Amino acid sequence: MAASPIFRRLALIGVGLIGSSIARVVRREGIAAEIVGADISASARSDLAELGICERVVADPAQAVQDADLVMICTPLGTYAEVGQAIAPHLAPGAILSDVGSVKQAVMRDLAPVVPDHVHFIPGHPIAGTEHSGPKAGFAELFEGRWCILTPPPGTDEAAVERLAELWRRAGSTVELMEPGHHDQVLAITSHLPHLIAYTIVGTAFGLEESTRREVIKFSASGFRDFTRIAASDPIMWRDIFLNNREAVLEMLSRFTEDLTALQRAIRWGEGEKLEDLFTRTRAIRRSIIEAKQA
Amino acid sequence: MAASPIFRRLALIGVGLIGSSIARVVRREGIAAEIVGADISASARSDLAELGICERVVADPAQAVQDADLVMICTPLGTYAEVGQAIAPHLAPGAILSDVGSVKQAVMRDLAPVVPDHVHFIPGHPIAGTEHSGPKAGFAELFEGRWCILTPPPGTDEAAVERLAELWRRAGSTVELMEPGHHDQVLAITSHLPHLIAYTIVGTAFGLEESTRREVIKFSASGFRDFTRIAASDPIMWRDIFLNNREAVLEMLSRFTEDLTALQRAIRWGEGEKLEDLFTRTRAIRRSIIEAKQA
Repeated sequence: MAASPIFRRLALIGVGLIGSSIARVVRREGIAAEIVGADISASARSDLAELGICERVVADPAQAVQDADLVMICTPLGTYAEVGQAIAPHLAPGAILSDVGSVKQAVMRDLAPVVPDHVHFIPGHPIAGTEHSGPKAGFAELFEGRWCILTPPPGTDEAAVERLAELWRRAGSTVELMEPGHHDQVLAITSHLPHLIAYTIVGTAFGLEESTRREVIKFSASGFRDFTRIAASDPIMWRDIFLNNREAVLEMLSRFTEDLTALQRAIRWGEGEKLEDLFTRTRAIRRSIIEAKQA
Repeated sequence: MAASPIFRRLALIGVGLIGSSIARVVRREGIAAEIVGADISASARSDLAELGICERVVADPAQAVQDADLVMICTPLGTYAEVGQAIAPHLAPGAILSDVGSVKQAVMRDLAPVVPDHVHFIPGHPIAGTEHSGPKAGFAELFEGRWCILTPPPGTDEAAVERLAELWRRAGSTVELMEPGHHDQVLAITSHLPHLIAYTIVGTAFGLEESTRREVIKFSASGFRDFTRIAASDPIMWRDIFLNNREAVLEMLSRFTEDLTALQRAIRWGEGEKLEDLFTRTRAIRRSIIEAKQA
């Protein structure tokens, strides 16, 4: 027995990995009566039409949001200001405007000033993804068992937050409310810094002489491989994350660099007990993650 | 139809994850007629006896190697000099002495001086492992589809190398011969540096204030989680790897740090095209690894 729709019309602005996964699960669960997908890329629109997961596929975001009671921005963070200006005059009274971006203070900065008073503005961030991109990379199960963080500004209508939260719960996620600045700090260490480091080490390997590089690929199963998966994530999306969460990323990076320098020194001076001590502590953190069922 | 045994008696010195996996696959494939397992840890010996994967379980490595035509050292690198001195006088004429250590120049340094002339000394390194430790963590399939690097010193008897290579091939691995110094360089970038970085970032997260730390665990699926798996590897084994491949690790680490500093600068100054350029190149490396069937 399918539950009844929560929304009349969902407009997705940007229909890549995340947007198309939302379309799939919203359709499967009957969460919205109608889905309109907007994408500036002609090839994404053509993929989307072929997939048949939206009722309508359009190029113009302003057209997509008309009469939608839920609008979700699923484009890279660097486009938000422009997208906001394009859609703001066309948002329906009482509509919810949300997004899936990985930084939340920048979303407030870029969108809050242009959102009309008659719209419920509730930024969001599903903690889910893969290293693949584009409409065809999406799948309905992407959000199952994952967290979705919502960062409604103070005073946001609670019923609207609840309707949006219900969408994510029906997609299989657990919803958590958070203050945007705190979100950006937590994500800087759990997601942005790990990606930055993975990109860096893969780049370092790429800079080695040709013969060594071939062997790096050959013997990548010994640890390096896991980094290459992370470093294969969407380049534009990640460029925008680093540019838009600069302060928190630089702060975590400087802590990391301090710690790395201390380890470098311990290796140089042969201080085995310092290494062993750290490696034993990090093993305990892994256990906590397994116990939290996030492994 | 089981192939005939290559060895009469295999002595495994140290029977943790790798040693016990070797015992399992040697037994399953009938590679040796008899397996003797030696471990200084009473609990490892008791686990091993319970598993029933060795004909004999002993504490003393000198006792284990008697009449063995293949001896494999599977203990942490820091024990090699001591193990070598203990077993050298008891090695049978014509026996092969090998190991599974992740650094190969240090193995030459610590073992070559004590190995008797009547023994074939052929260091080895199966590129395989998991984050789990101990005899019970092993499994016979660990080496399937993986590489095994052998680093025989110049002049080593080719028939002996071929017998050892055949063991690894029957375990499912592809064997590659390499010069020890080159091995240590390639592994420094593909394995040792990735582990060092993973240990560091998990340690950095552990150093954050308690409330943030709890959220790091909660939201670890966004990238951090993959690092915690790597940073859960055996502390003693990894301490010894860093101490014994110091030069190559410090060299790769300094290249990595340079590259990270350049990225840090690009983020601080908002140089988006530099970020995008790197992130696009690293994506290509991932494709090479997938094409090399190592993903």
